[in-house]
Amino acid sequence: MTDYQLMKRGELVEVLLNKLVLQNRHWTEKGSVASYIPELARASSSHFGVFTMTGEGKNFHAGDFNELFTIQSVAKPLVLLLALLDNGVEAVFKKVGMEPTGKAFNSIDYLEGSTQKKPLNPMMNIGTITIYSLIRGKDNDEKFQRILKFTKELSGNHNLTYDQSVYLSEKSTGDRNRAMGYLLRNIGTIKENVEELVDIHFRVSSILVTCKDIARIGLVLANHGIDPDTGKRIIPKNLTQIVNTIMMTCGMYDGAGEFAVKVGLPAKSGVSGGIMCIVPNRMGIGVYAPSLDEKGNSLAGTKLLEALSTELSLSIF
Amino acid sequence: MTDYQLMKRGELVEVLLNKLVLQNRHWTEKGSVASYIPELARASSSHFGVFTMTGEGKNFHAGDFNELFTIQSVAKPLVLLLALLDNGVEAVFKKVGMEPTGKAFNSIDYLEGSTQKKPLNPMMNIGTITIYSLIRGKDNDEKFQRILKFTKELSGNHNLTYDQSVYLSEKSTGDRNRAMGYLLRNIGTIKENVEELVDIHFRVSSILVTCKDIARIGLVLANHGIDPDTGKRIIPKNLTQIVNTIMMTCGMYDGAGEFAVKVGLPAKSGVSGGIMCIVPNRMGIGVYAPSLDEKGNSLAGTKLLEALSTELSLSIF
Amino acid sequence: MTDYQLMKRGELVEVLLNKLVLQNRHWTEKGSVASYIPELARASSSHFGVFTMTGEGKNFHAGDFNELFTIQSVAKPLVLLLALLDNGVEAVFKKVGMEPTGKAFNSIDYLEGSTQKKPLNPMMNIGTITIYSLIRGKDNDEKFQRILKFTKELSGNHNLTYDQSVYLSEKSTGDRNRAMGYLLRNIGTIKENVEELVDIHFRVSSILVTCKDIARIGLVLANHGIDPDTGKRIIPKNLTQIVNTIMMTCGMYDGAGEFAVKVGLPAKSGVSGGIMCIVPNRMGIGVYAPSLDEKGNSLAGTKLLEALSTELSLSIF
Amino acid sequence: MTDYQLMKRGELVEVLLNKLVLQNRHWTEKGSVASYIPELARASSSHFGVFTMTGEGKNFHAGDFNELFTIQSVAKPLVLLLALLDNGVEAVFKKVGMEPTGKAFNSIDYLEGSTQKKPLNPMMNIGTITIYSLIRGKDNDEKFQRILKFTKELSGNHNLTYDQSVYLSEKSTGDRNRAMGYLLRNIGTIKENVEELVDIHFRVSSILVTCKDIARIGLVLANHGIDPDTGKRIIPKNLTQIVNTIMMTCGMYDGAGEFAVKVGLPAKSGVSGGIMCIVPNRMGIGVYAPSLDEKGNSLAGTKLLEALSTELSLSIF
Repeated sequence: MTDYQLMKRGELVEVLLNKLVLQNRHWTEKGSVASYIPELARASSSHFGVFTMTGEGKNFHAGDFNELFTIQSVAKPLVLLLALLDNGVEAVFKKVGMEPTGKAFNSIDYLEGSTQKKPLNPMMNIGTITIYSLIRGKDNDEKFQRILKFTKELSGNHNLTYDQSVYLSEKSTGDRNRAMGYLLRNIGTIKENVEELVDIHFRVSSILVTCKDIARIGLVLANHGIDPDTGKRIIPKNLTQIVNTIMMTCGMYDGAGEFAVKVGLPAKSGVSGGIMCIVPNRMGIGVYAPSLDEKGNSLAGTKLLEALSTELSLSIF
Repeated sequence: MTDYQLMKRGELVEVLLNKLVLQNRHWTEKGSVASYIPELARASSSHFGVFTMTGEGKNFHAGDFNELFTIQSVAKPLVLLLALLDNGVEAVFKKVGMEPTGKAFNSIDYLEGSTQKKPLNPMMNIGTITIYSLIRGKDNDEKFQRILKFTKELSGNHNLTYDQSVYLSEKSTGDRNRAMGYLLRNIGTIKENVEELVDIHFRVSSILVTCKDIARIGLVLANHGIDPDTGKRIIPKNLTQIVNTIMMTCGMYDGAGEFAVKVGLPAKSGVSGGIMCIVPNRMGIGVYAPSLDEKGNSLAGTKLLEALSTELSLSIF
Repeated sequence: MTDYQLMKRGELVEVLLNKLVLQNRHWTEKGSVASYIPELARASSSHFGVFTMTGEGKNFHAGDFNELFTIQSVAKPLVLLLALLDNGVEAVFKKVGMEPTGKAFNSIDYLEGSTQKKPLNPMMNIGTITIYSLIRGKDNDEKFQRILKFTKELSGNHNLTYDQSVYLSEKSTGDRNRAMGYLLRNIGTIKENVEELVDIHFRVSSILVTCKDIARIGLVLANHGIDPDTGKRIIPKNLTQIVNTIMMTCGMYDGAGEFAVKVGLPAKSGVSGGIMCIVPNRMGIGVYAPSLDEKGNSLAGTKLLEALSTELSLSIF
Repeated sequence: MTDYQLMKRGELVEVLLNKLVLQNRHWTEKGSVASYIPELARASSSHFGVFTMTGEGKNFHAGDFNELFTIQSVAKPLVLLLALLDNGVEAVFKKVGMEPTGKAFNSIDYLEGSTQKKPLNPMMNIGTITIYSLIRGKDNDEKFQRILKFTKELSGNHNLTYDQSVYLSEKSTGDRNRAMGYLLRNIGTIKENVEELVDIHFRVSSILVTCKDIARIGLVLANHGIDPDTGKRIIPKNLTQIVNTIMMTCGMYDGAGEFAVKVGLPAKSGVSGGIMCIVPNRMGIGVYAPSLDEKGNSLAGTKLLEALSTELSLSIF
């Protein structure tokens, strides 16, 4: 609690973040950087940064918070949110479930034996591909541009672009996602052109962000849809709560349960090493460290979030 | 929000609870009462009650809040809590995981192919049986008495007993639990006598409670271990947070994800129709309605909790 | 045994076949014709024919033995045989297993958790797609033409063609096969262009045959590779034995075990209602009846084969 | 073929068997002896024997054919046969399926999601326990004595006993079988006392046999129920064919498909290193070599059977 009082004095929060980066830096030497495409394999495993942003407009950071990395699955909550805005809650969850699976992010299982043919949740790849099919747009490019614009709006960074070489490399190796797309067509969940859907997926996954960008997106979710700069509501509260909840139960894949116990906050990880973490009503957090644990979550990033949650009593439980 | 202001004036909260019982009573006609033993099948499906208890010592209730029912799986968080007190966090989670499964409560799956031979989480039956093996006691009866005493302490009801006929009936039909026990011995997770372990499980499951009893247990968890009457800490905060978190991710079985989205609170259901629900820092809730949905959770109880959470903005997300 | 003596006098075998068609015709009214594409759905469920061909050059038939139907999965043993000829035994079984699965023909499971990333057997769709990747040819068309030529050679029918409308319809709806193809690429089992592989698969599946055609192919397998007209060996014995064995353990999908018990002969079914059945050293049998049981095998065809095997003591066990 | 001509002259078959034992002896150094109980772990991995018995009464043998070993799962076909005699075909297969599973012998899966709650086949442990429930007898001891008597009759060895220490050791560690028993009770497949059923199972598994004993049992099955000494039918032909077929599709567990391809004969293995193999109409074979491959089948035994089948063209395909 003393730490939290320190928190009120900005300079000391910065001290705390720096301390946590220092204490957890050794974790960057464990685990391994994603290597399924050369562009990701090139990431420096020593990079380690954190950025926190509060509703009162206070920003703190430490380490390599300025590094650019591809957003990867951290985009999933955003795409879900846009799909909810485009279609409403009922229409979205007709196509995808809300249940955690205890399975890896790239599991191809769907509700086996169920009368409802739909992926178990929107945080797994097979669920996300389904969600992409619900994004409005007259063609594939417009759909992507709408997601990019939405990402710019929530991150407050209007210069976001995507990494062309990561995109092309993902596209050339993304056969598992194609398999999921065709399976979804086969079971009647989607009608769209699979190659187009996975193309959006690969482009969105390649959007370049920093810890600050995802911290601010997290803050909009923590604020339940209030833009932190204008104070205006840009997303209905109930939609942000749905997304936060699904991040809690499904956001860290088959490590979601342990993350919930140890950190106690909704979060979403990506294979490039980013984690976006939400402290409802209080804060958005972005961390980045490319070396991953065996479940595909940033190892040092997770450890830092555990320590930060403990030090500042952030758990919502 | 107006409702929450009303909440401050006790008489109006009572009005709200009564309204919600009335509005959701029709759900008691859907679903079906558990019938695997005659004692449960005899429950009146028209019973429907709710009890809320706040940290400030305010109690409200509506409907059949005074009905006695067997605690069943609502006891699981308590038994986990006692095991944590007895053994510490690390020792407990060496034996059982923290991950939701997307599977039914009586699924016999364990971490297939894993190097760690342990059930996925302590809210599934196979995990709970593992947890019983960790309860201290010189013999089976002492172990049970310790759990009963702990339940009395948390519920504040020192007259709790267990229903002998439910216990014997569960015991005579509980072969699936026996199967799980022997499987756990086979994979080396437990060493204990299986018949004794399932005997404790059946006795604990048969403890008779009311909505008030489980609301007060929920309040201790919501209070992070502070006894609401004495104001004294009786359980370390971190243990209550662990239990609350696991209730959120795993407490409602393969309906946990949907419950999290719609209610946004940690909860644990039992096959007799009870649900214990935790509003961290604020409130414990007990509901009872014996008719179950297809996932084994009280149907009217779930609906009432959805409405109550919405009306009072209780979601922690 | 008396029946078998009758068999020696050709006219009486014909009588037997006619009797069995008559006795089992009522089964054509049960089950249902495949309807996933309109071309298959149009098949007349009343069609029911059988053709037997022995090594001594005796041919018998009954019912609608002259009807044309698409070969569908009855082609799988042929394609496997050609792959074995093209690559040798070792190279083929490096890519695909030999084990029955207890699962449906279109199951997308592969050797989960195995160090060898390969489909469980070549009779499931995912195994067959793997096998297509092993067929030699400078381009996709040459590969198909080689399979067609091989089918002509084994059937002795040099006028075989494929049904263009079935081919196009399968191709336009074949997303599950595409999903399997992309999954195989993802796990590294195949390197080929998926769209080309499934294109061959759909063309081969659309080859039009009669009961006589598949009876003669069956006879070559029963003869262990001796052409029944010329008496010359056209395939090594060991390869035909491998194919016959795999038909026995895996040819009738998750009904293979029951078929083995009731008929006792290697066989391969197709979704259009054909079954090719092998009586080693003695006979090839082709049956056709489009209405399928719940496992996707011709219902009346299976019943007729059961009766024929019993009457003539054909079981190899 | 020359070898087969030699076969007619007994002294040369003996030469062949000796050659095969010699050539395959090096396989006894690979794999590993079952070690889940000390009694099995004590088996000498260098033991390697074979015994063949033909319908004409010719017996040949080589290596350690006189070694005693516990029958283990080689008893499964016998118990199935007795259950078929006791109950008829229909009643038995109402309780257990006929389908291979692609899974390990001790898999606890049953027909998941099926309307029929029954184990997939009688060669897996869970299926065998079901089969034991069908053996007639006024009490557990009479049931066991009937199985022992039947084993004596088929083996022609009236001095068979069971190994008390193996029995007790299996019984004290057999929790996985107990788990299966209780699961079977839970799903309603069996009503019997689980401890009694597994007790019979452990006693039967502990019956001591030699290669000769199981070769003669195999010969009765190969002869379709004719006693080789008296020439009298002791079992109906159709029942022996059912058992032979199920041995072919399910007898070697998840190695059944490969064994079928490489040996082409029905067979049943046991964890102590025995394999009983049937050459329909011709021969029974018993082999023994305790070191097992990773699927639980005798490694050197399997290799010897592959070679013997190839040399004498024994495959039924």
